[in-house]
Amino acid sequence: MPVISINENGFLEKLKKTKGLFSCVISSIETTKYVPISGVNKSVIDYTPAADMELVTLGKSLSLNHPPIDATGCPSPATITRAAVDLLDLPVLTVDAGSYVKPKIPYVSIDEKPTGDIRYGLAMDNSKELFRSGKILSKNTIYESLIVGESVPGGTTTALGVLLGLGYDAKDKISSGSVENPKELKLSVVESGIKNSKSNDVFDILNAVGDKMMPVVAGMAISAVLKNKPVLLAGGTQMASVLAVINEINPKILKSGLIGISTTEFVLNDKNADLKNIIEQIGDVPLFASKFGYENSKIDGLKAYCKGSVKEGVGAGGISTYSYLNGLNPKDIRYYVEENYEIWYSNFIK
Amino acid sequence: MPVISINENGFLEKLKKTKGLFSCVISSIETTKYVPISGVNKSVIDYTPAADMELVTLGKSLSLNHPPIDATGCPSPATITRAAVDLLDLPVLTVDAGSYVKPKIPYVSIDEKPTGDIRYGLAMDNSKELFRSGKILSKNTIYESLIVGESVPGGTTTALGVLLGLGYDAKDKISSGSVENPKELKLSVVESGIKNSKSNDVFDILNAVGDKMMPVVAGMAISAVLKNKPVLLAGGTQMASVLAVINEINPKILKSGLIGISTTEFVLNDKNADLKNIIEQIGDVPLFASKFGYENSKIDGLKAYCKGSVKEGVGAGGISTYSYLNGLNPKDIRYYVEENYEIWYSNFIK
Repeated sequence: MPVISINENGFLEKLKKTKGLFSCVISSIETTKYVPISGVNKSVIDYTPAADMELVTLGKSLSLNHPPIDATGCPSPATITRAAVDLLDLPVLTVDAGSYVKPKIPYVSIDEKPTGDIRYGLAMDNSKELFRSGKILSKNTIYESLIVGESVPGGTTTALGVLLGLGYDAKDKISSGSVENPKELKLSVVESGIKNSKSNDVFDILNAVGDKMMPVVAGMAISAVLKNKPVLLAGGTQMASVLAVINEINPKILKSGLIGISTTEFVLNDKNADLKNIIEQIGDVPLFASKFGYENSKIDGLKAYCKGSVKEGVGAGGISTYSYLNGLNPKDIRYYVEENYEIWYSNFIK
Repeated sequence: MPVISINENGFLEKLKKTKGLFSCVISSIETTKYVPISGVNKSVIDYTPAADMELVTLGKSLSLNHPPIDATGCPSPATITRAAVDLLDLPVLTVDAGSYVKPKIPYVSIDEKPTGDIRYGLAMDNSKELFRSGKILSKNTIYESLIVGESVPGGTTTALGVLLGLGYDAKDKISSGSVENPKELKLSVVESGIKNSKSNDVFDILNAVGDKMMPVVAGMAISAVLKNKPVLLAGGTQMASVLAVINEINPKILKSGLIGISTTEFVLNDKNADLKNIIEQIGDVPLFASKFGYENSKIDGLKAYCKGSVKEGVGAGGISTYSYLNGLNPKDIRYYVEENYEIWYSNFIK
């Protein structure tokens, strides 16, 4: 298996041969308009979540004239996710928790309004309601296993905020979607936000410095476990913060043996971060990292993943772990992305 | 089985013991603001679809302070649907195709804007796109069988319009959600609308005098059959119009043996209408009608169903057929509605 497993505990066997649903929760964060906390290209940041999910669902982006690509020319991790769901013919459920631009595909509306400005502790005022909505949605959705990712530009900063707010030692352990990880900037943003939190209760911390994806995914995951279905949080730092949220709300969920977290090798091996340590602080939960063999790619934008660009997002690591368990291997994904690269980016490549 | 079966053809056996998904597509129609074509209480008409689906999903309405109830005091058919999905613990998927008021539960957004004014042939300009969205949604949703209903106040008038526009003899055969069926009024509304249709192509007819629920349900149903899953159109006249739309787009679907239509005994026995004849004109498709035993009810508002009030809606007839196949009987539903009636309408009953 081209997957690094830590604390596996029989989880992968539960995920194998299940009819998986890939879901992705999207949101925008107002703070990204004023502070450069996201690695995403500034001119397209509002369109990124919508364009990501159009690509995953349809094989092309509609809200942008090509799939998202970062400032250094690295394609969105949605390209990996698209490969996995298309090759395995998996169903895709897009959930909007406040993306500025709405996807031009059917999506579940949970909150129209984007996450607010975390600098002032004004991320949202309805985290408890969003959590309940996530539970209701998951309860009313049929699947044998749930793989849930995110597309939230600026979301590693809210992840840092929530982890610090909940008392974790996360200061120097948070990954970034860019090679340059603006750690001091992120820290100053969330520290000012945390000061404005009403209390250190999980919903107050979310209301202050979280993003709207977090309570929704927490609700979806808890509901999955209560239905006795395995759930894979598909992401790195951001899903670690969701795991911390779940642990505050219902610590038994983490001990159920039905929840795991999976990211990419690029996040797990990030020298500027320490996901493994963060997960260990939260609880005894299996952690996985999918390999991609991108060092062998003929496309510079993919090779750059190995040097720290992009790294993760749109559930790329988790859906790959699921896909490797169910018949694919890294070459299938790499070849698919390489073959489609020129079509996807024909409007971008000069 | 407390179900009247016409042309059954082995369909029920395919539906039995499947993990069913109940979906309901909602829309508002602008024309209802100007012309009394709907039997729904005028003051709550904009809130009805949202309040119906909140009741079905949560067991209580949030957008109104009690579940919808018509001008004569008859409770919404959503009460029947709630009984079936709660007693069988069925998942519910709400799909918004333009309800004025958005439900306060997670829902799939397909079109935010309501259906326009059918008097001028201006129902919509995007029926083909809505059809595609319905297909995409259904393709990306897991179920073993699909039961799909509607909540569209004024929707029997758009059903009349689409059936007439497609050349069916439907003039005196369309049911109504009220005892008084304002046939002449409905006819004058749709005849003026049909004159403004670009052509008699199905998408042009929908654009002129349909409602947005119709192309969405048509897409969902076709996608279900293409996945080899049985689909039950849960409704009377309105679902007959959807069946006619499907037949225009892909007549093979009707011959697949995987599509049926199910309504209530109140619609099938309506002396002012002839659903059976309309279905026969469209094609060789199984037609069912669920019985409820409401003549034995101690509640006047339920007894009134037998005298022609409400009759159907929110998939009540179809989901009951599914529920009778899978363990329930009419008394289960009636007792459930009777037991909850006082709680639901405690704010309404003086």
